[in-house]
Amino acid sequence: MEQKLVPIGVSARHIHLSQEHVEILFGEGYTLTEMKPLSQPGQYAANETVEVIGSKGTFPKVRILGPARSHTQLEVSRTDAFSIGVNPPLRESGNIAGSAGVTLKGPKGEVTIEEGVIVAARHIHFHTSDAERWGIQDKQLLRVRFGGDRGVVFEQVIARVSPDFALDMHIDTDEANAAGVSNGSTGEIIE
Amino acid sequence: MEQKLVPIGVSARHIHLSQEHVEILFGEGYTLTEMKPLSQPGQYAANETVEVIGSKGTFPKVRILGPARSHTQLEVSRTDAFSIGVNPPLRESGNIAGSAGVTLKGPKGEVTIEEGVIVAARHIHFHTSDAERWGIQDKQLLRVRFGGDRGVVFEQVIARVSPDFALDMHIDTDEANAAGVSNGSTGEIIE
Repeated sequence: MEQKLVPIGVSARHIHLSQEHVEILFGEGYTLTEMKPLSQPGQYAANETVEVIGSKGTFPKVRILGPARSHTQLEVSRTDAFSIGVNPPLRESGNIAGSAGVTLKGPKGEVTIEEGVIVAARHIHFHTSDAERWGIQDKQLLRVRFGGDRGVVFEQVIARVSPDFALDMHIDTDEANAAGVSNGSTGEIIE
Repeated sequence: MEQKLVPIGVSARHIHLSQEHVEILFGEGYTLTEMKPLSQPGQYAANETVEVIGSKGTFPKVRILGPARSHTQLEVSRTDAFSIGVNPPLRESGNIAGSAGVTLKGPKGEVTIEEGVIVAARHIHFHTSDAERWGIQDKQLLRVRFGGDRGVVFEQVIARVSPDFALDMHIDTDEANAAGVSNGSTGEIIE
């Protein structure tokens, strides 16, 4: 049977901003500028960064991913969260109701968000054609194995299926470090 | 069949010092003093800390674990390693030949070690009686599962068996955060 192999993208801490917050932080009428494209079509790392201020510390330069979204969302690892003193829940991207808050500071202003800070649940983006070929449904929970001297099986990996997605598994830096993997590593979906 | 359940101890970054290095850092004739006992009999967290200086950053207060050992050994997570700019190999405790170096600074002096910095390989301490009951051999590689919303199976978990050990699985902070577990969590050894 065909092995179900997925490439890994390791998500370092990053932030998505609403256009309203872009303008508070960078000035009225400002729009994000693209530094480089990401694996998912239309998404990019912006040239801009923001300062993130928690109760116990700050990250001076957190990369913004564009384009602007409907809601601001900061994604950090659990290690990051401890180090600056925030307590985000583990959530799927976009599900931010009741999540943690934080203060953001840009060159032109600052804003405190009441929610939007999460630890992102690991997930795989599947193009519809990949999902159909492998018999995988949107929202299905999968198990993915990585070999090597820090071999692990990640459970509870959420399948996300869309004709707009490219095949890519997203894990955070804690997960990557725990498994001894990095960008370009390959995992296998197992039963 | 009896479940093989093991309690978790999460190892934050810490250091073991040789008596020679204790005296360089804290003064001639100095001996470490106990703050609190650890899970393994005779081992303790010391009141003393040292500053650890890497090429890109420092940790101002790294806890010393006592008593003094034959060789100095600094154990960090991969995240820690990136943050201060050291590149330690994944190793079993005690196996430090050719590992990474770092500079240590105490109240009375400093010392640069050429080797001794490692990322500790995950392992389980078994008292001989636990190992016999469960049919586990010293050095055997095990698989240990944790449930929950960040469920994982850790592979390549090294069994260490001794009449001097108490049952305890040691993982680092990256591994604990990736699995969503903390001190007091319980894993299950699986086939």
